[in-house]
Amino acid sequence: MDKNSSNIMALAPNTSNKRETVCIFGTGDFGRALGHKMIQSGYPVVFGSRSTQISSLIPKGAEVLSHTEAAQKAAIIIIAIQRQHYNFLMPLTEILHGKVLVDVSNNLKINEHPESNAEYLAQLVPGAKVVKAFNTVSAWALQSGTLDASRQVFVCGDDMEAKQMVMNIVRALGLTPLDQGSLLAAQEIENYPLRLFPMWKFPVLLSFGLASFFFFYCLIRNVIYPYVYENKDFSFFIAISIPNRICPILALILLALVYLPGVLAAIIQLYRGTKYHRFPDWLDKWMLCRKQLGLVALAFASLHVLYTLVIPIRYFVRWRTSSQIISQVLNNKTEPLDTTNAWLSDSYVALGILGFFLFVLLGITSLPSVSNNVNWREFRFVQSKLGYLTLILCTAHTLVYGGKRFLSPSSYRWYLPNAYMLSLIIPCMVLIVKFVLIFPCLDKPLTRIRQGWERNPQYSE
Amino acid sequence: MDKNSSNIMALAPNTSNKRETVCIFGTGDFGRALGHKMIQSGYPVVFGSRSTQISSLIPKGAEVLSHTEAAQKAAIIIIAIQRQHYNFLMPLTEILHGKVLVDVSNNLKINEHPESNAEYLAQLVPGAKVVKAFNTVSAWALQSGTLDASRQVFVCGDDMEAKQMVMNIVRALGLTPLDQGSLLAAQEIENYPLRLFPMWKFPVLLSFGLASFFFFYCLIRNVIYPYVYENKDFSFFIAISIPNRICPILALILLALVYLPGVLAAIIQLYRGTKYHRFPDWLDKWMLCRKQLGLVALAFASLHVLYTLVIPIRYFVRWRTSSQIISQVLNNKTEPLDTTNAWLSDSYVALGILGFFLFVLLGITSLPSVSNNVNWREFRFVQSKLGYLTLILCTAHTLVYGGKRFLSPSSYRWYLPNAYMLSLIIPCMVLIVKFVLIFPCLDKPLTRIRQGWERNPQYSE
Amino acid sequence: MDKNSSNIMALAPNTSNKRETVCIFGTGDFGRALGHKMIQSGYPVVFGSRSTQISSLIPKGAEVLSHTEAAQKAAIIIIAIQRQHYNFLMPLTEILHGKVLVDVSNNLKINEHPESNAEYLAQLVPGAKVVKAFNTVSAWALQSGTLDASRQVFVCGDDMEAKQMVMNIVRALGLTPLDQGSLLAAQEIENYPLRLFPMWKFPVLLSFGLASFFFFYCLIRNVIYPYVYENKDFSFFIAISIPNRICPILALILLALVYLPGVLAAIIQLYRGTKYHRFPDWLDKWMLCRKQLGLVALAFASLHVLYTLVIPIRYFVRWRTSSQIISQVLNNKTEPLDTTNAWLSDSYVALGILGFFLFVLLGITSLPSVSNNVNWREFRFVQSKLGYLTLILCTAHTLVYGGKRFLSPSSYRWYLPNAYMLSLIIPCMVLIVKFVLIFPCLDKPLTRIRQGWERNPQYSE
Repeated sequence: MDKNSSNIMALAPNTSNKRETVCIFGTGDFGRALGHKMIQSGYPVVFGSRSTQISSLIPKGAEVLSHTEAAQKAAIIIIAIQRQHYNFLMPLTEILHGKVLVDVSNNLKINEHPESNAEYLAQLVPGAKVVKAFNTVSAWALQSGTLDASRQVFVCGDDMEAKQMVMNIVRALGLTPLDQGSLLAAQEIENYPLRLFPMWKFPVLLSFGLASFFFFYCLIRNVIYPYVYENKDFSFFIAISIPNRICPILALILLALVYLPGVLAAIIQLYRGTKYHRFPDWLDKWMLCRKQLGLVALAFASLHVLYTLVIPIRYFVRWRTSSQIISQVLNNKTEPLDTTNAWLSDSYVALGILGFFLFVLLGITSLPSVSNNVNWREFRFVQSKLGYLTLILCTAHTLVYGGKRFLSPSSYRWYLPNAYMLSLIIPCMVLIVKFVLIFPCLDKPLTRIRQGWERNPQYSE
Repeated sequence: MDKNSSNIMALAPNTSNKRETVCIFGTGDFGRALGHKMIQSGYPVVFGSRSTQISSLIPKGAEVLSHTEAAQKAAIIIIAIQRQHYNFLMPLTEILHGKVLVDVSNNLKINEHPESNAEYLAQLVPGAKVVKAFNTVSAWALQSGTLDASRQVFVCGDDMEAKQMVMNIVRALGLTPLDQGSLLAAQEIENYPLRLFPMWKFPVLLSFGLASFFFFYCLIRNVIYPYVYENKDFSFFIAISIPNRICPILALILLALVYLPGVLAAIIQLYRGTKYHRFPDWLDKWMLCRKQLGLVALAFASLHVLYTLVIPIRYFVRWRTSSQIISQVLNNKTEPLDTTNAWLSDSYVALGILGFFLFVLLGITSLPSVSNNVNWREFRFVQSKLGYLTLILCTAHTLVYGGKRFLSPSSYRWYLPNAYMLSLIIPCMVLIVKFVLIFPCLDKPLTRIRQGWERNPQYSE
Repeated sequence: MDKNSSNIMALAPNTSNKRETVCIFGTGDFGRALGHKMIQSGYPVVFGSRSTQISSLIPKGAEVLSHTEAAQKAAIIIIAIQRQHYNFLMPLTEILHGKVLVDVSNNLKINEHPESNAEYLAQLVPGAKVVKAFNTVSAWALQSGTLDASRQVFVCGDDMEAKQMVMNIVRALGLTPLDQGSLLAAQEIENYPLRLFPMWKFPVLLSFGLASFFFFYCLIRNVIYPYVYENKDFSFFIAISIPNRICPILALILLALVYLPGVLAAIIQLYRGTKYHRFPDWLDKWMLCRKQLGLVALAFASLHVLYTLVIPIRYFVRWRTSSQIISQVLNNKTEPLDTTNAWLSDSYVALGILGFFLFVLLGITSLPSVSNNVNWREFRFVQSKLGYLTLILCTAHTLVYGGKRFLSPSSYRWYLPNAYMLSLIIPCMVLIVKFVLIFPCLDKPLTRIRQGWERNPQYSE
């Protein structure tokens, strides 16, 4: 149901259908846009303004009156003015008594004021029923009808009936109201439009940090070292070869960091002998951004797959292949098939494919519409069982990739081990500890603790 | 909660739980299917029909009475007959007074009648409360329980209470009611099931047109030209080589066309000095189908990735590689590594990978369940900032691909330049204009205009 | 709106906002977690317990009273005790008269008791209004706030007002209530958290069975046969080569099995001359899991794509390529370009790419949030028209892959044909029958039958 057709609807309004008049205080951009949309949807609209001159900008069909007169004409008054001007409402307290005041305001900063604008409004006009709504919708989106990101209108308020009236208007405008409870929620609703992926900050910063570290690490080993010792210019490795080392390393480390907090939590619970004790704050926060960590890891894994699949297309690789073949021919020396190498090569690739496949499955399951359709048991099955299987496969992929090279001294340059070795530390730790925790002597008490049993009940005092 | 288990439920109905009787006028396919589903969900159902003989098709447990008798038994009457027979209801006006009439009808064409069927029904039976519902559900889906595409039931009506009663029935049948407001919305609800991707028509037609043009362009340059001048049969290029030229070209052009209307809108606003003036109609329509344009572009980009990754598997490519190596050996001439070529090759591939990666991210963000979970600021960040970055990367990918060949005369055949050069025109234009618009002397007035400032306030009269 | 910020909210409660007291019977894990969350959201909470001693585990701010006293303080009582202890409520019948009792219990097995726990509770306390809710939320999720999988709270009950009260609490806790209708739905709601992908069982088991069969089939042909007759060790084929044969075979067979039931249903309807007759049970069940079958097929197709794209990276393939080139050089014999081979190779790859591309489109359309946004006509267009096109392309891909080899006797080993030939049987059958059904002499009567026409109306008696 797009906006186009609601326009058509507005062109042929059914006059038999009467909607209640809505009053809008303020003739700024947002007030006008909202008024325009409401008139389109069949609402009589009256603006309350200091100057009652009809400007050309006021949507056609709307009246403009003084605040007092406008307020008397409607049961619902939308306050489309900025918080700093709210006190002009104080003289109107009597007229506004019993009316529904809709606070649509936003702030410029998160938690800008001690109380939300809507609560401030409710304090100023104690007799009115304040409802918070429409703040997540932009004037531009209302006018243009491109409401892709903002069909949802969060609504909150203490008066159930007033809230219901506002939610009906929201629906009539083709938007989706979401009841967020009492006016207490207004602060959160006002903060909502100011957020820019808050849960992604830590995972993204962490991966930037790790990526820069590993970039310079690989630069030293793979570009500077051969330049210094063999006078070879491999600077073009910066485009693909080095990113294709960084991506799998980051994917593996971040994936392990998704499962590390769960393992730490189990150890803490076992040590304390109770689950009735808060985890340290950093652990709580870490656990809350596991989904984001996992998705960033998946992004790196996907890049790794793309970087790997283009290998045979690269000029450097084609050149190397043909010069190897030519040197074999010129030396009249043909290599026989080395079955061990074939096994190693094929199995590390196969492990990678299976690991990536499960990883993508995990990603799909974390899409909101998919995870809303599974129950808790299914979600845990996918995210825990399949997740650990993914970690095992990806770790094995890296281990087999190392293969024979693992401890060969030639893979050390300036005493620096190959970068993939560093990436194995955390995943192996997580898997070993998880493996230890599966043993019945640890698993049984842990299960009992998680069901509510306590080793030292007095501990929780 | 699938249909299977609701069947189980129906087999053991709890008799203590009494639901209100529902009356259905009409014993056609849809009436019977709806009746069957309602009886399953515990509603007593009575059919109103001209012939009151119980046919074997009437669901078990339902009564069949004359229209008058049936209407008297229930507060809710579902009108499961076609619009052209509605006038038989006129004699029943008195009995139907105060009843809830549910219009479930659909039309064969969009906007077939001047008023919607539901509004027509409301005019015929003025005393009744008409509610539009169930028209998006098919009889077959109701019977078979495979409701994948149609769990949503749009409901509209002027009487709040009547609408609520119908929405409760919808929920009881395991469907999701969506309140669309007053009966005014009925026209739109009746048009809804007749649509076949209306927003996709323009992007799909456009890309068909462009694809055919570039197909023949490449056919001439890459198949007919070598056949005429070198007598070589490269007709098999039609399968992969030519599609792999068309796909990236279309992806790039369509992606640029996503951002072109925004740039045009900025120029128009700057020129007019105000934002309070409607854009021309074609620009409005163009802006509304940007999402679809972008997704079609992503589809072509994905095909380009697949076509590119299979290159080393193709027989022709393997043959060419080995004949090149053999000719090198036979000429006893080994090529040294050309670092410039390595840089060009690696960086154009790397730019392509990064561009495609961001493009997929954009695509994922446009999934309804994802875009519903981000706020306006986050949506704009992704679709605008990341979108432009994608366009820059993809344009750079194409530019570097051209590399040294760009102005070499050998790349012209019959005076036709390489097809990828044509694809660069629109993206480069968009990027240059966007770059110019970023300069403070243009960005500042634009920002002020978008905040509501006007250069010539009289303009908007 | 994440849990973090609702914590912030709880730290600064607006004391002017009074919520109704809620009583919780039972101080177990779930009762305490729910109580804690409710206090956070501003509800006064009173626990009813046998021992009224305040334990350290009881959330701060909650009262603990005897059951009788606690029940008298609130209109809503949450019964957080296990079903076997419900009979302790019988002496309280009088006090509970008219109260809203919320049943939050779960069972250990699907359909453990003849009636649901909520219905049992309603029988024990006849005067109370029983509402089923909160059973899909875990105590752990309530405490930790990681409610990814379980924001949805299914609610059902016979009393509309009581249900509404409970749904308001659900919303106030930041969860999404879903009205499932009358208390009849409680059985289904109680079964819900116990399910583990019930619709996926058949497709997954079927594909395991088929996969093992084809694994051993390919093992015999591709590993054991060359070992026996040519003494070559190709055991490493187990890692990639054999999976890359199994995956496309399974993808094709499962995709055909998605469309087979529709074809069978058409034949049955044509034979019977009516649609008013139930299909056999196995066909009904098969039709209900078509989506899952298709998605498993897509998973195998994706694995096939990955396994295919890594081919040029494998050590074995690189070794084979270079030895072929070297042998050509040493024999001084250069192969000319074989245009037929180039056509065959390129067109089978192109068909595969297009088939996979459409297959992925089908998969994306089956995401809940996407399929909810299309109407029935659009859904059928994608799933039926595009689906058949996908099947045609994938079958053609396999046929052209066979190419010249198809009937050559050298492709039989121990009388076993190539595995891909077996995979073609079902798809070709489905396509042929579907093609026959399109002929007007069959399509016309079928369409009429599906519109309700019957050949022998007496048949349906």
